[in-house]
Amino acid sequence: MRTSRFLLATLREDPSDAEVISQRLMLRAGMISRLAAGIYSWLPLGLRVLRRAERVVREQMDATGAQELLMPAVQPAELWQESARWEKYGPELLRLKDRHQREFCFGPTHEEVITDIVRQKVSSYRQLPACFYQIQTKFRDEIRPRFGLMRAREFLMKDAYSFHRDEASLDDTYQAMHGAYSAIFSRLGLKFRAVAADTGSIGGASSHEFHVLADSGEDAIAYSPGGYAANVELAPAPPAPPRPAPSASRESVRTPGQHSIAEVSAFLNVPPDRIVKTLIVRGADGGLVALLLRGDHELNAVKALRLPQIAQPLQFATPADVRTALGCDFGSVGPVDFPGPVIADHAAAALADFVCGANADGYHLSGVNFGRDLPEPETADIRNVLAGEPAPDGSGPLAIARGIEVGHVFKLGTVYSEKLACTVLDENGRDAVMTMGCYGIGVSRVVAAAVEQNHDARGIVWPQALAPFEVALVPINLHKSPAVAEATETLYAQLTAAGVDVLLDDRPERPGVMFADMDLIGIPHRLVIGERGLKDGLVEYKARRDEEAQNIPLAEATGFIRKALAGV
Amino acid sequence: MRTSRFLLATLREDPSDAEVISQRLMLRAGMISRLAAGIYSWLPLGLRVLRRAERVVREQMDATGAQELLMPAVQPAELWQESARWEKYGPELLRLKDRHQREFCFGPTHEEVITDIVRQKVSSYRQLPACFYQIQTKFRDEIRPRFGLMRAREFLMKDAYSFHRDEASLDDTYQAMHGAYSAIFSRLGLKFRAVAADTGSIGGASSHEFHVLADSGEDAIAYSPGGYAANVELAPAPPAPPRPAPSASRESVRTPGQHSIAEVSAFLNVPPDRIVKTLIVRGADGGLVALLLRGDHELNAVKALRLPQIAQPLQFATPADVRTALGCDFGSVGPVDFPGPVIADHAAAALADFVCGANADGYHLSGVNFGRDLPEPETADIRNVLAGEPAPDGSGPLAIARGIEVGHVFKLGTVYSEKLACTVLDENGRDAVMTMGCYGIGVSRVVAAAVEQNHDARGIVWPQALAPFEVALVPINLHKSPAVAEATETLYAQLTAAGVDVLLDDRPERPGVMFADMDLIGIPHRLVIGERGLKDGLVEYKARRDEEAQNIPLAEATGFIRKALAGV
Repeated sequence: MRTSRFLLATLREDPSDAEVISQRLMLRAGMISRLAAGIYSWLPLGLRVLRRAERVVREQMDATGAQELLMPAVQPAELWQESARWEKYGPELLRLKDRHQREFCFGPTHEEVITDIVRQKVSSYRQLPACFYQIQTKFRDEIRPRFGLMRAREFLMKDAYSFHRDEASLDDTYQAMHGAYSAIFSRLGLKFRAVAADTGSIGGASSHEFHVLADSGEDAIAYSPGGYAANVELAPAPPAPPRPAPSASRESVRTPGQHSIAEVSAFLNVPPDRIVKTLIVRGADGGLVALLLRGDHELNAVKALRLPQIAQPLQFATPADVRTALGCDFGSVGPVDFPGPVIADHAAAALADFVCGANADGYHLSGVNFGRDLPEPETADIRNVLAGEPAPDGSGPLAIARGIEVGHVFKLGTVYSEKLACTVLDENGRDAVMTMGCYGIGVSRVVAAAVEQNHDARGIVWPQALAPFEVALVPINLHKSPAVAEATETLYAQLTAAGVDVLLDDRPERPGVMFADMDLIGIPHRLVIGERGLKDGLVEYKARRDEEAQNIPLAEATGFIRKALAGV
Repeated sequence: MRTSRFLLATLREDPSDAEVISQRLMLRAGMISRLAAGIYSWLPLGLRVLRRAERVVREQMDATGAQELLMPAVQPAELWQESARWEKYGPELLRLKDRHQREFCFGPTHEEVITDIVRQKVSSYRQLPACFYQIQTKFRDEIRPRFGLMRAREFLMKDAYSFHRDEASLDDTYQAMHGAYSAIFSRLGLKFRAVAADTGSIGGASSHEFHVLADSGEDAIAYSPGGYAANVELAPAPPAPPRPAPSASRESVRTPGQHSIAEVSAFLNVPPDRIVKTLIVRGADGGLVALLLRGDHELNAVKALRLPQIAQPLQFATPADVRTALGCDFGSVGPVDFPGPVIADHAAAALADFVCGANADGYHLSGVNFGRDLPEPETADIRNVLAGEPAPDGSGPLAIARGIEVGHVFKLGTVYSEKLACTVLDENGRDAVMTMGCYGIGVSRVVAAAVEQNHDARGIVWPQALAPFEVALVPINLHKSPAVAEATETLYAQLTAAGVDVLLDDRPERPGVMFADMDLIGIPHRLVIGERGLKDGLVEYKARRDEEAQNIPLAEATGFIRKALAGV
């Protein structure tokens, strides 16, 4: 392809409204174009990347024996009423009415439609297991669509659904999908982890998320050298050490103006892991609940929400609530004489002689002990694990990484098949409700996550499998030097004949502009042809990830590139 | 692929609600499944066909240098207000509101979005011409979605848009698209014609439709051996012969109970081409207008609507209107003493001594002559051409065929680029409005049209390029005969290794059921393996289009199939 015949719509300046790296770089590189909030067009350059991701996803899904189909974007309300999600789904479901005032939605997911198809078309247990997938445009009406493709409203998704006569069969397909997802992200050249995940509000038995690792990721992942990996939301904290016997006496200490754990720690010269942090949240009965954490630990909201005493969703008490109940500000709250349930994280409950707020502005208590100065608290695991702590399965110390969720595999069980009466005749001629799994990949999100993981100050650094072109061919003075023109055309023809996907930059631009554009759009390999090098039969090669260029013989350039592409 | 691992959802009975052949056969063959009125899922078998059509479309579009992109399905109302189509488009535009009550539509077409992209991303005349296309799901909220995929509400379309600095450049791309469309439908193995078409309400300079020929087509196409082809809506009628001098005297004749041209012709023993048919329509001023046609001719509404005297859209007078104005029923209306404008088709105006209604129930007039018994009428071409009449360009006698419109190429001119201020800087640094073309193919409609054109009593007869599989391999007693099982697996492996797309029917079904299913889904080539033939080293081959099967040596089967696929 030649840039003269291809829409290269790079921008000199960063777009003003971009909030994350992938959005900024993909807009600047002219890969996408914003049509409305959370709604993007894929320009030719970006579409090439999206299609590469799509192809790998399709090949690996096909390899599992999953069958591709294509369901409609527009779905009738009746089906969603059958599954009871029409009311439940909330405003993220884009509801619409046709000209006859019949209700539909723009599908954000297709459990209902596939279950409707399967209940009509699959009748015998002999047809099971069966797994169907599609790669299709979805819409979720996010309240604040942000971060470009990372949280777009209209997006491309691969969604698969499997149907089984029993759990054992579901297990098999679940494992096959887990394997396919690992193959997909490996082939795409992404650093990723599959992690055990919360099954959340969908219910179901088991679930894994696939995260592309990137510092900008919204999720935290805990993993061990021995293979443990879980979303931090889910990773259990290790058992706490036994609590020492009390050795200090309780005292009230003045801590004027000291509110945070760090401030109190410094002021009293007590390490944070000897301080108890008290968080006040709304209880399920409308009252207040105190959650105690060690000063160096953080609350894990997903774990806390498993406590029956806590209101859903998690609501922290307001300053006014706290003043009414305890007579002080947040910075001085503590568990002693707390007028409600007190629930301590195991690690906080293991402390003796600790410091905590005194429920009086400007005061803390020191030398506090459970069972002596306040009742023994109820205990639970309500904190995030920390790097260096042991993995729960004994597979070594945990590390924590940031991740972007790009895939999800899920054992649905019979949630949908029961509601929609999706049954087969079993060996005995009796109706048996099918067991289901579902498996999603945010294909457009994968592309954005790849940029979040692979970029530098000059722009995107595509993994080879996703790059819109494999090689950028940049001639210097193409339109003035016949020697350059001839060498360029010859090399372009050679590379193309060798099956290499080349972008020839034949614009009459300055070299600096061409180099900057090719770096920005992230083509993995670059060849520069100039008169000076040609005199010695040389062209310049540089990998996008490298800082240094090298000269190679023009005559060997095609072979060199083929080896580079093969990773030799 | 094996049927044991593939959703073969054929139906024994015709679906009760199918109105056209393609809908009936594709539902019965389990290629599509209805989700709601005009909204269909593509099941795995059907999707294979759709993807084949899509691939050919994509390859031929790429060959023209058109650049693929992907625009959103959901489009903001603001853009449609800029082009003034938000109000104009009517209820076929599926309008919707997001959670913030902002207005959007589910795109039925993308002129606005592509023009918005190009005005942002293309700034210099040096970047022109440029042509962009996408293959994407569209929605048109048809008032009565019928005929399955032929008039679905949600459908797959290839839409392309080209941008130019002048008409000459538009002409070049228009011709390139015309050529690409011809290549597409040829490669898909369809009998088709490109015809000059009405530019209709979109405006613009020039337009061609591509029709797949099928008896069930909604459109009529006139074409000549010398290459003339036009939608009958548009084909000009040949000049009428000179009118003979009057030779008969006007008489009133009793025609009790004779209303239609055929009845009057038989009753009076006068051929239809000597009778004038009078149609009464609403005039632009609210009054009535008489349109005169020769008895053997049909009104062409598209031509009639070009007359300024006629109300838009065409409205025929009611029986009450006619009785009030003329004092008689439809069957007796005539032009003599008609109280309003009388417009005669050229052929009607060329008649002398003709028969027409007498404006009195049960009476006609004979021996009527223009200029003597009634004023000379205004004349116009308002009829359909007939088979056998000369083509307007002198290229021989016309034939008439029925067609299904599957593609449309259109010179848009500056309709959208002016409204959306889509300009480039020209050589002199001045803003120049771009000239545009647009080019559509209904990809899902192509599949339905292929079925309308290619079927028989047993089911679909896919052209090879569209077939979901190339070969059906049908073993008899696969699960009982080790010899059959071994030969089947060997042949399946051979064919697959040779790159042949085989569907192996390994279900434990009776041969008749398997044969019927393979015929219904329309696989072009069938191989049957049975114990009896195997004893002589033979398998049975039958082409889907043939009635007779033939035995071929098992050892030569793969070579035989490869030759058959190559059309040797």
